Amino acid sequence: MFSSAQETKVSEDPTATFTGWAAVPNGNGILQKWSYHPRPLFEDEVEIEISHCGICGSDIHFTSEGWGPITRPAIPGHEIVGHVVARGEKAIHQIGDRVGVGCIVAACRDKLCDQCEKGEDQFCDQKSITFNAPYKDGRGGISEGGFADRIRVYSDYAFKIPKEILSAEAASFFCAGITTYTPLKRYKAGPNSRVGVIGIGGLGHLALQWARAMGCKEVVAISGRDNKKEEAFKLGATKFINTSDRQQLTDAAKSLDLCLCTNASKNNNWEDYLSLMGPLSHLVLLALPEEPITFKGTPMVAQDIAIVGSHLGNKADTVEMLEFAAKHNIRPWVEKRPFEDCNEACKDVHAGKPRYRIVLEMDAAQKNPHA
Amino acid sequence: MFSSAQETKVSEDPTATFTGWAAVPNGNGILQKWSYHPRPLFEDEVEIEISHCGICGSDIHFTSEGWGPITRPAIPGHEIVGHVVARGEKAIHQIGDRVGVGCIVAACRDKLCDQCEKGEDQFCDQKSITFNAPYKDGRGGISEGGFADRIRVYSDYAFKIPKEILSAEAASFFCAGITTYTPLKRYKAGPNSRVGVIGIGGLGHLALQWARAMGCKEVVAISGRDNKKEEAFKLGATKFINTSDRQQLTDAAKSLDLCLCTNASKNNNWEDYLSLMGPLSHLVLLALPEEPITFKGTPMVAQDIAIVGSHLGNKADTVEMLEFAAKHNIRPWVEKRPFEDCNEACKDVHAGKPRYRIVLEMDAAQKNPHA
Repeated sequence: MFSSAQETKVSEDPTATFTGWAAVPNGNGILQKWSYHPRPLFEDEVEIEISHCGICGSDIHFTSEGWGPITRPAIPGHEIVGHVVARGEKAIHQIGDRVGVGCIVAACRDKLCDQCEKGEDQFCDQKSITFNAPYKDGRGGISEGGFADRIRVYSDYAFKIPKEILSAEAASFFCAGITTYTPLKRYKAGPNSRVGVIGIGGLGHLALQWARAMGCKEVVAISGRDNKKEEAFKLGATKFINTSDRQQLTDAAKSLDLCLCTNASKNNNWEDYLSLMGPLSHLVLLALPEEPITFKGTPMVAQDIAIVGSHLGNKADTVEMLEFAAKHNIRPWVEKRPFEDCNEACKDVHAGKPRYRIVLEMDAAQKNPHA
Repeated sequence: MFSSAQETKVSEDPTATFTGWAAVPNGNGILQKWSYHPRPLFEDEVEIEISHCGICGSDIHFTSEGWGPITRPAIPGHEIVGHVVARGEKAIHQIGDRVGVGCIVAACRDKLCDQCEKGEDQFCDQKSITFNAPYKDGRGGISEGGFADRIRVYSDYAFKIPKEILSAEAASFFCAGITTYTPLKRYKAGPNSRVGVIGIGGLGHLALQWARAMGCKEVVAISGRDNKKEEAFKLGATKFINTSDRQQLTDAAKSLDLCLCTNASKNNNWEDYLSLMGPLSHLVLLALPEEPITFKGTPMVAQDIAIVGSHLGNKADTVEMLEFAAKHNIRPWVEKRPFEDCNEACKDVHAGKPRYRIVLEMDAAQKNPHA
């Protein structure tokens, strides 16, 4: 299974070639097969043969140049699962370990910053995200994502996957999972919490499951349409609010202690959402709307409501989340597609079709023969 | 000094008359002398002979009908200090006690709600604010504020004032003080905190003092002009940012962990403020701008920044704040004016003239002769 297993301090092989599906400048979001020479494998890094990679909305924003123009071929993908096939001598994983990689592949290391010291490396100014980010660690190179046959990362940014979780299901935990788990933990979701989830998609369908497993008093699925209502209850909702029905909004006034907004569309009505929030509550933005956020301050000031962003999650929470998912049998609902169908799959994600996550799966024949 | 000291279960005297300065419908914000018959004094209440009352921006919003039309004469004022001159038999204060009253005079009592149970009665749906609020406690009546010779309140909404604090100085603690103390406490201002204060006025000048006394690592005064810069340093600031100088904003990017915005004007630039906030920080709104709050979500989501309202404070924190002020020698900078000059004083508050709070003081001759 592991075609080039090796232990090395620094892989010096300049001919190593990884192949993936890359967005290219003015490519209209169409991914093209593209190969690159990875930077050397350092002593604290692992090389992973990728078996699965989830598709996240961010991948679409990036590849379609909605976040700005692409200047070079760049491989997206940051919900990565595979096996370790090479390791530096100080790497924390062994050859053959099954691991996952999420949105971050590096942060400052020798000189610890305040944020890294607190374990909140997602805020480190020296961090690199998983794709198209120049490394700031002095080792050179630009990160390439997981729509590819292999990836090299610092071993502490690869997380061992509990045996209970299938690889195809594990992938989505590394972005959608940790992004939803983190604010529920931070804002103490539990038996006394009335938790809302706006948007029942890749993030939302996991948020409902976490909230149920955390024993929240109420788990409220919130959407502008009824088409996912039945599934929302299966995912753990105890109540459903259709925001296009004003009466339902009125009836639920001040009824939430915590609410995760996973909807980045321009349909968000922030005053409606604030009306649902109780005293000292948190409305958490997990997705980044392109339009400005606008609301009158009255309910916020009268009820001490917070609107707060939440960006990814940290390493300790990622480990905890995987254990929690294994223990409570929480799994994303995924649809598998071959890597070579990634363009069609991305189109479907863009159209909001997945119920609830598409995960690319590597066919045995696609494996890198000579990485 | 106490002209009608008495102990009574319920004062049955229907001729009791209190006199104050009331806003009237279409009165252009001009206060007029007006007398009313208070509701009976109940067993758990005290009657206070008012010696001082601070003037808050909210009083001006209300009396000038900026918050909507006034439908009846109504006495403003919610930074009240005086002596107990009558008490119900279950009242917690004694005749002669010097006490203060803030923004709230009642909340649900027999049937405790979730919020009252948590001690957060400022969010109780059954609460009454100090002026022009119908009581919801079944005892009838409408609250009248502290621009008057007397007031009757539940005794647990009157707070004993530490002997170190002069009455004229004590008044401002009951709104400006508790409003600024509460979020500093809630968001753990202390030696590790870099705290900003936007707006150096009635609230801001106390916020700077609290933050300094709490030992905050940095106390940053933030204003659109330099005219209070020198005084800001005297009040405890360790640094000053003039928001009209873009370079100063750039230099201070991500430098605050907590920031209190006391500015309700339309000059607030929320994106500039967000640019000052570090990871996992709180930007707290203490004043309610009339215009919608608008900002792009990027920094909020990338840095997990919260924008959060803060409304008054609770009873336990009020007691704690008074002790803290006495211990750390924190005092508002006040200018005393006679009650009969309240119209001119309100005009000055509206014009932003006070440095930093105007407190109305009762002349001995003005005392209610037959309350």
